[in-house]
Amino acid sequence: MRIVALSGGVGGAKLVDGLARILDGDSLATVVNTGDDFVHWGLAIAPDLDTVMYTLAGVSHPEQGWGLADEGFRALSMVERYGGPAWFRLGDRDLATHLLRTEALRAGERLTDVTARLARALGVRHPILPMADGARRTLIETERDGVLPFQDWFVGRRAKPEVRAIRWSDDPPPTPEVLAAIERADAIVIAPSNPYVSVDPILSLPGMRAALSHKAIVAVSPIVGGAAVKGPLGEMVRTVAGEPASAAAIARHYQGRWEGLLAGFVVEHGDARELPAGLRVREAATVMATADDRRRLAAEVLAFVEELVR
Amino acid sequence: MRIVALSGGVGGAKLVDGLARILDGDSLATVVNTGDDFVHWGLAIAPDLDTVMYTLAGVSHPEQGWGLADEGFRALSMVERYGGPAWFRLGDRDLATHLLRTEALRAGERLTDVTARLARALGVRHPILPMADGARRTLIETERDGVLPFQDWFVGRRAKPEVRAIRWSDDPPPTPEVLAAIERADAIVIAPSNPYVSVDPILSLPGMRAALSHKAIVAVSPIVGGAAVKGPLGEMVRTVAGEPASAAAIARHYQGRWEGLLAGFVVEHGDARELPAGLRVREAATVMATADDRRRLAAEVLAFVEELVR
Repeated sequence: MRIVALSGGVGGAKLVDGLARILDGDSLATVVNTGDDFVHWGLAIAPDLDTVMYTLAGVSHPEQGWGLADEGFRALSMVERYGGPAWFRLGDRDLATHLLRTEALRAGERLTDVTARLARALGVRHPILPMADGARRTLIETERDGVLPFQDWFVGRRAKPEVRAIRWSDDPPPTPEVLAAIERADAIVIAPSNPYVSVDPILSLPGMRAALSHKAIVAVSPIVGGAAVKGPLGEMVRTVAGEPASAAAIARHYQGRWEGLLAGFVVEHGDARELPAGLRVREAATVMATADDRRRLAAEVLAFVEELVR
Repeated sequence: MRIVALSGGVGGAKLVDGLARILDGDSLATVVNTGDDFVHWGLAIAPDLDTVMYTLAGVSHPEQGWGLADEGFRALSMVERYGGPAWFRLGDRDLATHLLRTEALRAGERLTDVTARLARALGVRHPILPMADGARRTLIETERDGVLPFQDWFVGRRAKPEVRAIRWSDDPPPTPEVLAAIERADAIVIAPSNPYVSVDPILSLPGMRAALSHKAIVAVSPIVGGAAVKGPLGEMVRTVAGEPASAAAIARHYQGRWEGLLAGFVVEHGDARELPAGLRVREAATVMATADDRRRLAAEVLAFVEELVR
């Protein structure tokens, strides 16, 4: 069975890692959100791509989930000494990724190609596909501070300003590699990422909805027992959807905004309440604290997908 | 007395540091070679500017003379892991300088202005002036490997290929700040830097020779007892000038190529042999192992300059 996963950063990357422990490199491709990408210190930063890449390469920071293990911050502290911007904490090892990517992009290489090259060098065997080669910046419309670029809102202001809506700077096409992977896929797995700022940027690319039609799509809920496993999602559900955070709110978002997008939905044990009609549901242990958790959840998701496409 | 120093990297920076321990920020400006500048990992690297800046800021590496104290190489080792170029060892703290400079230059800031800004942030009180804002790459004509960009020859090939001649990629004008500093100066001190690749790039800028006419110019010999204190200069004298390295060979270079440029020449004790006629000479302890050595030599140079301009 060939799977395409749609993923944002930390939470999504964990499930992708679980899938990659089961499926070979031909059977799993991951389409990654690039809406969080931005330029900092003159470097092209792609947080979700790097989180997925570092996770699949087994070099990610063991506790925080993003960034690299054995990281240092000498460059950052020197930038601070110069009075430069230090609100986004780029690590020394991480800088290598941004430096090589930035240089390659300036030389005209596509983000898709430089990502493939870097991932290969780190020993990653499963394709990591940026959703687009063209820029598509996520813009956060806030109640009090106007429209903020994603990282200004997320890191710069610690996701505090209340979110009213989300939109994007540009509408680049999905890459040929993304469309080809979806075309070949037997099913699509939406990883437990933030729907608004990690998955919607992928789903709303021009032509993406059409490319996904007739595909069995399964999402894993990023909400567990009324709260986000990580990040500002819980609060975003409240302010954007106008309801308390719940797995059901996530399902309603996908089924409402994307017209019955999902065939199946994987939720935490006990969270299968008030879900939209017509949605097949699987309860599972969705919190991934260990590598075993990742593999076990991935296996459950794949078994569920098998049932749906059979 | 107002002094303008002309300097390359490590050796020159030491004397400049000695001068800065005696003269206030209004009485000493340093014009720095930018012929070694190059782009690496997409970053604008300016080795001599940084060596002078780090030295005057008191943050330079205590043993090697270039680079920063308390440096790490996490980014470099990660670049190596990616299979990227690792022949030029950029340190993590050092990266901050290159990142901020590169970003500023791309935004249209002049090298002169970004250098002033960075140096000020590090607490440097004496102006550090790049010789030019426009590129002027030093090119090394070798016997066997053709023409090499300076860093390819110096670091990439460890200065091994025999040098036939040196030339430059472009002829940008000296900056207005350089010309103004020279105009105001009572005397010029050529630091003990490599004449061919550190001082000639400055002296051969368009209009520089005219700007320096009528100025008392004193050079400090970078050759001590027949050998260079540091770097490939000894071998370069042999292959470029066709004679063994000596203080006299350095003096003949300046007086020959630059038509009696020097009024005075400071050499190591015992090196005042076979010097060109008409050149005032001062013997001194020119090897600067400690901060005291720097200050003592600087004081001797200043006393010598006083005698010459009196």
